[in-house]
Amino acid sequence: MTSVLDSPAGWRTREVAPLDDETLERVDKWWRAANYLSVGQIYLLDNPLLAEPLHRDHVKPRLLGHWGTTPGLNFLYAHLNRAIAEREQSTIYITGPGHGGPGLVASAYLDGTYSEVYSDITEDAEGLRRLFRQFSFPGGIPSHVAPETPGSIHEGGELGYALSHAYGAAFDNPDLLVAAVVGDGEAETGPLATSWHSNKFVNPVQDGVVLPILHLNGYKIANPTVLARIDEDELSALMVGYGHKPHLFTAGFDDEDAHSIHRRFALVLDEVLNEIAEIKDRAARGDETRPMWPMIVFRTPKGWTGPDYIDGKKTTGSWRAHQVPLASARDTPEHLQVLREWLESYGPEELFDADGRVSADIRALAPAGHLRMSDNPHANGGLLLKDLRLPDFREYAVDVPRPGGSFAEAPRILGQWLADVIRLNPDNFRIFGPDETASNRLQAVFEATDKQWNAEFEGPEVDEHMARAGRVLEMLSEHQMQGWLEGYLLTGRHGLFNCYEAFIHIVDSMVNQHAKWLKVTADIPWRRPIASLNYLLSSHVWRQDHNGFSHQDPGFIDHVVNKKAEIVRVYLPPDANTLLSTYDHCLRSRDYVNVVVSGKQPAPNFLTMEQAIAHCTRGVGIWDWAGTEVEGQQPDVVLACAGDVPTLEVLAAAHILRERVPVLKVRVVNVVDLMRLQDAREHPHGLSDREFDNLFTADRPIVFAYHGYPWLIHRLTYRRNGHDNLHVRGYKEEGTTTTPFDMAMLNDIDRYKLVIDVIDHVHWMRSGQANLRQEMVDARLRARAYTRDHGEDIPEVRDWVWPDAGETGTAEGGPQQDQVSATAATGGDNE
Amino acid sequence: MTSVLDSPAGWRTREVAPLDDETLERVDKWWRAANYLSVGQIYLLDNPLLAEPLHRDHVKPRLLGHWGTTPGLNFLYAHLNRAIAEREQSTIYITGPGHGGPGLVASAYLDGTYSEVYSDITEDAEGLRRLFRQFSFPGGIPSHVAPETPGSIHEGGELGYALSHAYGAAFDNPDLLVAAVVGDGEAETGPLATSWHSNKFVNPVQDGVVLPILHLNGYKIANPTVLARIDEDELSALMVGYGHKPHLFTAGFDDEDAHSIHRRFALVLDEVLNEIAEIKDRAARGDETRPMWPMIVFRTPKGWTGPDYIDGKKTTGSWRAHQVPLASARDTPEHLQVLREWLESYGPEELFDADGRVSADIRALAPAGHLRMSDNPHANGGLLLKDLRLPDFREYAVDVPRPGGSFAEAPRILGQWLADVIRLNPDNFRIFGPDETASNRLQAVFEATDKQWNAEFEGPEVDEHMARAGRVLEMLSEHQMQGWLEGYLLTGRHGLFNCYEAFIHIVDSMVNQHAKWLKVTADIPWRRPIASLNYLLSSHVWRQDHNGFSHQDPGFIDHVVNKKAEIVRVYLPPDANTLLSTYDHCLRSRDYVNVVVSGKQPAPNFLTMEQAIAHCTRGVGIWDWAGTEVEGQQPDVVLACAGDVPTLEVLAAAHILRERVPVLKVRVVNVVDLMRLQDAREHPHGLSDREFDNLFTADRPIVFAYHGYPWLIHRLTYRRNGHDNLHVRGYKEEGTTTTPFDMAMLNDIDRYKLVIDVIDHVHWMRSGQANLRQEMVDARLRARAYTRDHGEDIPEVRDWVWPDAGETGTAEGGPQQDQVSATAATGGDNE
Repeated sequence: MTSVLDSPAGWRTREVAPLDDETLERVDKWWRAANYLSVGQIYLLDNPLLAEPLHRDHVKPRLLGHWGTTPGLNFLYAHLNRAIAEREQSTIYITGPGHGGPGLVASAYLDGTYSEVYSDITEDAEGLRRLFRQFSFPGGIPSHVAPETPGSIHEGGELGYALSHAYGAAFDNPDLLVAAVVGDGEAETGPLATSWHSNKFVNPVQDGVVLPILHLNGYKIANPTVLARIDEDELSALMVGYGHKPHLFTAGFDDEDAHSIHRRFALVLDEVLNEIAEIKDRAARGDETRPMWPMIVFRTPKGWTGPDYIDGKKTTGSWRAHQVPLASARDTPEHLQVLREWLESYGPEELFDADGRVSADIRALAPAGHLRMSDNPHANGGLLLKDLRLPDFREYAVDVPRPGGSFAEAPRILGQWLADVIRLNPDNFRIFGPDETASNRLQAVFEATDKQWNAEFEGPEVDEHMARAGRVLEMLSEHQMQGWLEGYLLTGRHGLFNCYEAFIHIVDSMVNQHAKWLKVTADIPWRRPIASLNYLLSSHVWRQDHNGFSHQDPGFIDHVVNKKAEIVRVYLPPDANTLLSTYDHCLRSRDYVNVVVSGKQPAPNFLTMEQAIAHCTRGVGIWDWAGTEVEGQQPDVVLACAGDVPTLEVLAAAHILRERVPVLKVRVVNVVDLMRLQDAREHPHGLSDREFDNLFTADRPIVFAYHGYPWLIHRLTYRRNGHDNLHVRGYKEEGTTTTPFDMAMLNDIDRYKLVIDVIDHVHWMRSGQANLRQEMVDARLRARAYTRDHGEDIPEVRDWVWPDAGETGTAEGGPQQDQVSATAATGGDNE
Repeated sequence: MTSVLDSPAGWRTREVAPLDDETLERVDKWWRAANYLSVGQIYLLDNPLLAEPLHRDHVKPRLLGHWGTTPGLNFLYAHLNRAIAEREQSTIYITGPGHGGPGLVASAYLDGTYSEVYSDITEDAEGLRRLFRQFSFPGGIPSHVAPETPGSIHEGGELGYALSHAYGAAFDNPDLLVAAVVGDGEAETGPLATSWHSNKFVNPVQDGVVLPILHLNGYKIANPTVLARIDEDELSALMVGYGHKPHLFTAGFDDEDAHSIHRRFALVLDEVLNEIAEIKDRAARGDETRPMWPMIVFRTPKGWTGPDYIDGKKTTGSWRAHQVPLASARDTPEHLQVLREWLESYGPEELFDADGRVSADIRALAPAGHLRMSDNPHANGGLLLKDLRLPDFREYAVDVPRPGGSFAEAPRILGQWLADVIRLNPDNFRIFGPDETASNRLQAVFEATDKQWNAEFEGPEVDEHMARAGRVLEMLSEHQMQGWLEGYLLTGRHGLFNCYEAFIHIVDSMVNQHAKWLKVTADIPWRRPIASLNYLLSSHVWRQDHNGFSHQDPGFIDHVVNKKAEIVRVYLPPDANTLLSTYDHCLRSRDYVNVVVSGKQPAPNFLTMEQAIAHCTRGVGIWDWAGTEVEGQQPDVVLACAGDVPTLEVLAAAHILRERVPVLKVRVVNVVDLMRLQDAREHPHGLSDREFDNLFTADRPIVFAYHGYPWLIHRLTYRRNGHDNLHVRGYKEEGTTTTPFDMAMLNDIDRYKLVIDVIDHVHWMRSGQANLRQEMVDARLRARAYTRDHGEDIPEVRDWVWPDAGETGTAEGGPQQDQVSATAATGGDNE
């Protein structure tokens, strides 16, 4: 068996000559067999070989599936098989028109993979019956290309990500060809429309090759497609404008016979693959001209080979072929006859023997072993996944002489560790960001690598940290970043996506689909675990300063928490060392979506690395140095916090309370791992009730300052004993122009308001601390008025440090100085 | 004052000739003045006219804003002013690079609008000081183009929607020019990349004209832009491929003087506007050839006219000019001097008189009155908004002889009413959908109108309901639909967006931004209310049948509920008449985001129109006909429901209970308006606690079957008395292939499980109804096994009707028959 892993043999050229008749016949038979199996899956419950007359009971009572795109997908699959076998070219197939599920299942069955991974779908008549029956049937397989489909890394569902996934797969796989079929419906989506530009990022030497094939079959559910209804010249110009050399192929609109069509397409495919091989060869010899990569426009009728007209309405070559063109197949003898004739038109007796076995010459078209696209290990990335070599994150720790005794921009520290992650893993770890990697303070990575860019360069004065190869990829499209990263992870590599918190909602639906993929693959034994999808949301909603209301929304956390508990992790490290510890954990994990939110502005460091590791391991803990508890007694109040800004304000509030009401027993609890709050029965990270009570008490007031919308904390702690005593201060939606502390005040999460909350909820303080309460109200008004006058925070807030540090001099650096230098260095705040 | 409304005078041609010197000087002075005011806003707290030496205290302590795009925006604004005045061409300006807030504020100040709407920003030195100070300052205005900016319908924040908004504004405004500046950063986003294709949808006779201006200044935050780093030939091909005739203009990279640059650009602009006028003229004379609309590529240096180098680093013409290029302006005398020289380079003494008044010749460049782009009423759409003429929805009612006594596909009924809405409002109401309007069962609208399409046609066999002008717009891009609709609403018209529920997450971040716009404009007195943004999510997650897990996510409701309560409304009408009543309400409303979820599959009708109106008016109510309460007694249990599938299952459960445990007092409560559940103090629609208790009781078990994720119901009812007795069954994430009833079982929301829930929560039933409980368990197993065998629901479920109907014969139509015919008519289920 040829292993694509051991001896990549790709990028051969081949003389462009017509196919010999035997190969031609094999290609045609594969196509007919795949089409037969596709129609069979959509319609038939039984009688898979038409061994007996077709009866209505042989037809499924509910017909659900998609025929329209399937014959085109089957055609391309057959031809690619021929070329792959000849060139021993490791290739995976991305099915942009993911509706065409039956086609991909059919091809995986024809090349033998399907029966290998699903042993009950045997290679005989009974196996065919089961293959047909299971499709889009309760307890069976979905009608789309899905995780269950061998050879797929791309779920059919929400459209738009075929090319992003394809390029993600191609990065760092220099010998891999990714044949990416793009539906002309999908081509209308935004993400797909911009993803053509991926070709300016791919490196012709060190990355693989994406061959986009625009499947121009002209129709969507009920409309023509835009790209099918413009001049061919205009369409060609569009592809040239996208940086491609288009090869236009049209077939199926006249009476040209199938062999002639196959012969023509084989020539096109060989020409295209030769062009690719030549580009790879030129690049290997040092030519840095950006290549115009070839692509194919594949114009064929929708529902090709199906019934031309049904009940007098044009079907093949129209939107009516999109789904199930003969929805009433069971209803009349005439319709049954249409279905039978349709199936027979493929000549099943030439394709399968009497036992239902696929004929030998069809099977002979399939490449060997892992060269089969449905068995290519790149499409089951966990097979190829290697652990990252991770530098010891403890060596990157910031010095924390005492809590709050030094300052750092946490992601800047993380960047130093990531730089070494890159150095140790030069070909299977990448950082993705929509033009924000520097803005998010990960600059240190540019000491180890560059931003990969394969469009024009203009010189070092303006092109900093840019090169033809590099581990950072940046384009101003969150969709593209997410899609590239998903493709990269699904093919067995590692990475992270850094983004502004408010704008990560752009990929809400994409993370949905990826999380669902992870959830389903966990139950598919032959799918191996892949690296987690890691987010770093480092320009968060509390520090959008004057940008505008549009930059404010912490709801991505709520969005991901709606996904399955086994898949989702949310971390809110409060300082630099906890961020390091958290990210080390994330990069080691598998099959999760890890959301990490950490501010990029200078902020105090609270925990030494040793403390940080212990704290992150627990996920939640009491910060005894910040509280004023008395050994052996219950605290009067719990001040809890999750997120860096809330933590800072809770500590400042605790400071006020310890100075002004020394008798008050305050416990400070910090939460890093948000899922710890949930019930152990609902989330694998959840605390038991006993653990929860130990931390938060069962009956004392809890004032909880939280980074996001407050409801999430209520939701997570819903069944806890302490829940009725829980008072959450979180993010509120308000559109105003503020300083950082203004934002805290706007959200009632500022130190003064937190002190007021404590006074209001601790019974004996209500009467006894009226003066302090009044003072806090005044302090808020004064702070607000100061920002209106001066445009910055009042000094008592701006220069506040945790008191232990104050006693022995100011903390190192100090918040204000760092802030200015950081601003100067990076061009200021968020975009 | 010229009114653009009364006498549109646009689409004139003008001889293309060089500008006269006086006009040239005015254009140049406007540009310099706008640049001066922009720099002033970013940097200065005081000393606005540089009347005294520049001192560090005159400079803002925190510099936050964006210079890079601003001078280009100002240049274009100045030139458009000239052309608008000459041609009396009603024009609005869309600022794709929305960071350029200071530029748009500057131009609105120069033409007088700013002082008209903000009377404290006077036209004198003190006014200038306030203008500068307020920018990106606490309590002031955001650094981006925002709702506060006169002339804007497009918030600077998340990028990608400039062209979608522009086309939305242009539809049905035949005399309007929309100058849409597209940033080359924004051009990398998916939504923008596909929105160029909008030109295939705009009608050259009945719609206005969008003039895209690609602002190619080469850089983003920290990277070059893709489109600036490809050959000009390639870029031109891209624009041609998008269907445009590109006009390339480059300036600022050599020592060409400003007047020469202005002269060249004026010629380009006149040529372009003449081409537009000719296209409009040809179209008016009946030429139906799709025009290649002109567009401009405007290539100028980023930060044009700013300091070339700062501290030895290239600034103008690089990414370093993106934000605040002189972030340390206050820090050293040298930097202060750089700032002063920069400001003085514009010659403020020629631009403002000693009192700070804008010089007369600058002001003379501005067009008159509403022709000023900052005062164009189309950019304050509420000014132009007319109430829809709505047909009496009661006349479209389905007949409901008794509850559950007839069947309908609710959106199909709604479509009949919408068809008449279209007939009565032929030019200010549109329906938007991503190729799903027919799939979502709104087909009846095509009796009144067509899908507007201005690409090629291929004849009636395949092009059903398509025409060059029509009220329905469909393209396979949810972003585009949302963007078009937003632009249409913001310019004072009405519409709705129909979409599959799972895929509406694609526009999560867009609805965020629109909701925030609505929230802010509510507090801006000169902004008038606009029509609400109406969703119809009609292919919902309970009926995705076999499509796949990717089609399942009801979380859009959770997403919008995180927005401000004043803005958001969520409706879950349980049948056809309630859907009609709900939608009538939505189309009358203003300034809301209305989310309406209603299944498209055949389902029983429960309420007569009279009952439906009463029920929708209350938003929530007891369905006494479905319950078994006894007058004057508390019920034993409340069965609550929200959503059509949950309602059906709750009624079926109530049916079982009334037959099997007649002694049990069941109350059935249905919720249409989800926000009624919330506290009256938190949402304007919220019930008072007394009202809530009256409906749900304070102490009886409530079994609540809900359409979406169960947590939302807990959240909304958090503080209610009955909350501790509330047991919510909602949507759970599971990826399997199911029939409709399978899906209900998967989610524990099926009739049998609901009966079990009642038994488990009503104390006396636990012991007394063990047999019934066992029977229900068996019924579930039997139903599940049946679908595995037959591929469809078990007859006892499939054919179930509400018993009152059963007593007098079967209901009209019946669920199964309708389902088949509907499937046949539309090609089956969801895409």
